[in-house]
Amino acid sequence: MLAIMEFSDHTTNDLESLFSPQSIAVVGASADTTNPGSRYVKQLLEFGFNGKVYAVNPKGGEISGLKIYTSLAAVPGPVDYVISTIPADLVPQLIQDCADKGVKLLQLFTARLGETGIPERKQLEERIASLARRAGVRLVGPNCRGLYRPDKGLTFRFTSPKAKGDVAFISQSASHAAELMNRAEFRGLAFSQIVSYGNAVDINETELLDYYAKDPNTRIILAYIEGVRSPDFPKVLKAATRRKPVIVFKVGRTAAGARAASSHTGSLAGSYTIWQSLMQQCGAISVTSLEELVDTAIAFSKLPAPEGRNIGAAGAGGGGSILSADEFELQGLHMPPLPEEVLDELKTFLGDAWMMIKNPVDTSVVPPAVWGVEKVRRILTAVAKNPLYQILVCDSGEWFPDSAADVSKYQDIVSLFLEVKKDIKKPVAIVMRPADHAEEWRWRGLMEQQQCCVQAGAAVFPSVGRAARALSKFVDYHLPPRV
Amino acid sequence: MLAIMEFSDHTTNDLESLFSPQSIAVVGASADTTNPGSRYVKQLLEFGFNGKVYAVNPKGGEISGLKIYTSLAAVPGPVDYVISTIPADLVPQLIQDCADKGVKLLQLFTARLGETGIPERKQLEERIASLARRAGVRLVGPNCRGLYRPDKGLTFRFTSPKAKGDVAFISQSASHAAELMNRAEFRGLAFSQIVSYGNAVDINETELLDYYAKDPNTRIILAYIEGVRSPDFPKVLKAATRRKPVIVFKVGRTAAGARAASSHTGSLAGSYTIWQSLMQQCGAISVTSLEELVDTAIAFSKLPAPEGRNIGAAGAGGGGSILSADEFELQGLHMPPLPEEVLDELKTFLGDAWMMIKNPVDTSVVPPAVWGVEKVRRILTAVAKNPLYQILVCDSGEWFPDSAADVSKYQDIVSLFLEVKKDIKKPVAIVMRPADHAEEWRWRGLMEQQQCCVQAGAAVFPSVGRAARALSKFVDYHLPPRV
Repeated sequence: MLAIMEFSDHTTNDLESLFSPQSIAVVGASADTTNPGSRYVKQLLEFGFNGKVYAVNPKGGEISGLKIYTSLAAVPGPVDYVISTIPADLVPQLIQDCADKGVKLLQLFTARLGETGIPERKQLEERIASLARRAGVRLVGPNCRGLYRPDKGLTFRFTSPKAKGDVAFISQSASHAAELMNRAEFRGLAFSQIVSYGNAVDINETELLDYYAKDPNTRIILAYIEGVRSPDFPKVLKAATRRKPVIVFKVGRTAAGARAASSHTGSLAGSYTIWQSLMQQCGAISVTSLEELVDTAIAFSKLPAPEGRNIGAAGAGGGGSILSADEFELQGLHMPPLPEEVLDELKTFLGDAWMMIKNPVDTSVVPPAVWGVEKVRRILTAVAKNPLYQILVCDSGEWFPDSAADVSKYQDIVSLFLEVKKDIKKPVAIVMRPADHAEEWRWRGLMEQQQCCVQAGAAVFPSVGRAARALSKFVDYHLPPRV
Repeated sequence: MLAIMEFSDHTTNDLESLFSPQSIAVVGASADTTNPGSRYVKQLLEFGFNGKVYAVNPKGGEISGLKIYTSLAAVPGPVDYVISTIPADLVPQLIQDCADKGVKLLQLFTARLGETGIPERKQLEERIASLARRAGVRLVGPNCRGLYRPDKGLTFRFTSPKAKGDVAFISQSASHAAELMNRAEFRGLAFSQIVSYGNAVDINETELLDYYAKDPNTRIILAYIEGVRSPDFPKVLKAATRRKPVIVFKVGRTAAGARAASSHTGSLAGSYTIWQSLMQQCGAISVTSLEELVDTAIAFSKLPAPEGRNIGAAGAGGGGSILSADEFELQGLHMPPLPEEVLDELKTFLGDAWMMIKNPVDTSVVPPAVWGVEKVRRILTAVAKNPLYQILVCDSGEWFPDSAADVSKYQDIVSLFLEVKKDIKKPVAIVMRPADHAEEWRWRGLMEQQQCCVQAGAAVFPSVGRAARALSKFVDYHLPPRV
């Protein structure tokens, strides 16, 4: 622990400068384009890193038109940042080479170290950390994918989103880093940075948290943590949550999970009960799945602050309406019936049919195709504008058109939701089922509407239950419940 | 309540004969093909109902090549079953017409009755129930979609699955009936029957439950219930669960939900705590969402009975592995580490790399494309066959190929999972993320693999968490936890 503490007074400028390399060498890249090092090289070139990219491998050769240098020393210019994909046994020598070359940051994709639980591997990991410390080389990892920074052209996977956003994600798991990036892109969430930081023998969750808390380009911080490395974590977390929302997914909630965490990144998960109380005391937002991490980020990223807990809703199907009421109520939100003045307004243009309108407004009972878009717009607007409701939830309902012609009915509903959203300053959540249909035309019809909502900046959730959980965390953050 | 009780001694043969009509008249169908009655006529013809279908409307005309009769009396042959889509005010006269024509069963799609909460509408509903009782006409509904029976060619929606299955679903909500049908088809679940039964003024949950409990073509019963109508429900439920699994999704878990239930089908939801204890005492399986209803049905329908609570797993990504361990443990299942004999076997063909193999086996650490399919097959088989594990869970991981060529890597993994499944008598659950990708080739690649699993009879779940919840209910049913 002492070793790590030596760096606790690093300022965030350290990471900002370390994470802004002008030149990168991938040690382990080869002419075989399937190996991880070669993939890093191709990813950086494809993503458009605009500094220098070098490949290093004692075997030499060529990759993507680049010469492969046989050693780091042989690289002609300076190197700020090294990505290592070589076996763990070779890393001690690499650290010496980095020091000699003036490399400031080394990211170890290299694994089979502390996480194996094997004593000599743990010792090797400790030796690597200690050598790097003495050599003045900072480490990301080992056992990680490293940095994604669209503003600097850094990435750790192909087809990474180019959009620059204001959400930072620190992830102890590489696969979670990639999965969240995919899922988030699809839902219109863009990142300032993502760091997959693995075993965290040097740069750890606490230093990263401190950095993103102070980073002016980051508005929301997400974290996936298996085990905390620094005793400063609570202090830094508390300071971070005073500046911006910090949403944390911690695993190792059970003994089996803790064991798995230990054998993934060598983390000590600790007691989850204590963790929960720590989260609360520090003002962090705690979630329990990757899906919930994305959902909650969507709420914070896309919605204006709510002014109350009452939900006015549009739903599809009576069963769905009851389910909504249950889900929101169970999450500490409310779905009060339509007030008299709304009913009175409905009576003016609906006649007897006013009696079929409730909260949620069941759009399957008043399909725009039958009732006319104008009438349904008036109904939705009457609910949306009423001050009783501070949050709006629009569920587009089950999407299962009988024919391609039916697709337009769904479009009518979704367009109405987007119109309501445009007119209203309250938070508006849109619920759309996953587009996992077996038929292409069904998939396409739903996907197009989803992407239309995403492009309009809407907060889209795949189920009412998931919307309810995310909104609940979002509302609790802005309007803490009285205890 | 008395009114309903008069029918409590009906035997199941009553419903079997009522639900097997030779001739159906849709009263309310018209030349306008968008109206609900016209849709029923077209749905029955398209689905292939092989009895007679008649359309009735005082305006006459023609629909889908069928003459529209101006009254029920004008229909030339006998009519067993009438579907009504006419306004509620006209239903009392229709009941008289049904009685005159010898109709035995009347399904009221007709709504705006008790569910509105308006006293005169409730009275009209009671009058309808009482008239039908006196006339000897049984009622399904009002405010419902009625029957889906692939073996008899009955349906309430277009593009209904033709496959005959052994799962019955009774649903107080029409939209949930349709949504579950869609979602279930996609995942390879086929039905004996589905009944959307709405306000349940005559045929209610209890009579339906009794019928399906005794129905030789039904092996599993699913129910979506807003409020119970018959005091015999607990007795009938208990008897039903002695014969087959009964999985119940009850809404109205909160005050707001209960209010919504009342205004959907006029149901009194009652206390959810009492409901939970009733479910337990009766041996029913209780779920809290439509997704969980499908997931749990998939487990019961596709998997052999488990012989223990220990899970051997394949996962993708270290973070995913920890998440799995947490999710299963939280649901009362276990994920013990690999036993010595498995590790010893792995050492014989993996060399040092054995140290990277854990439970779950991380297929991203040992990708078949790099390690060779044969080696990964041997790893998975060693885990699958070990008697320590009584259940297998295979998570195909995040699906986000870089290119179309990458799709084959995913296919390799999924094929291996299916091979393991074929060789093993234990329950095998496969986890595949929803195919809701924005790019067609990604959607198609994933969807084809999903459908491949479904066609192989696999139990496929969209997330580890959902698999864990469903498997937990399934295991508890077969191996009740010691209290």
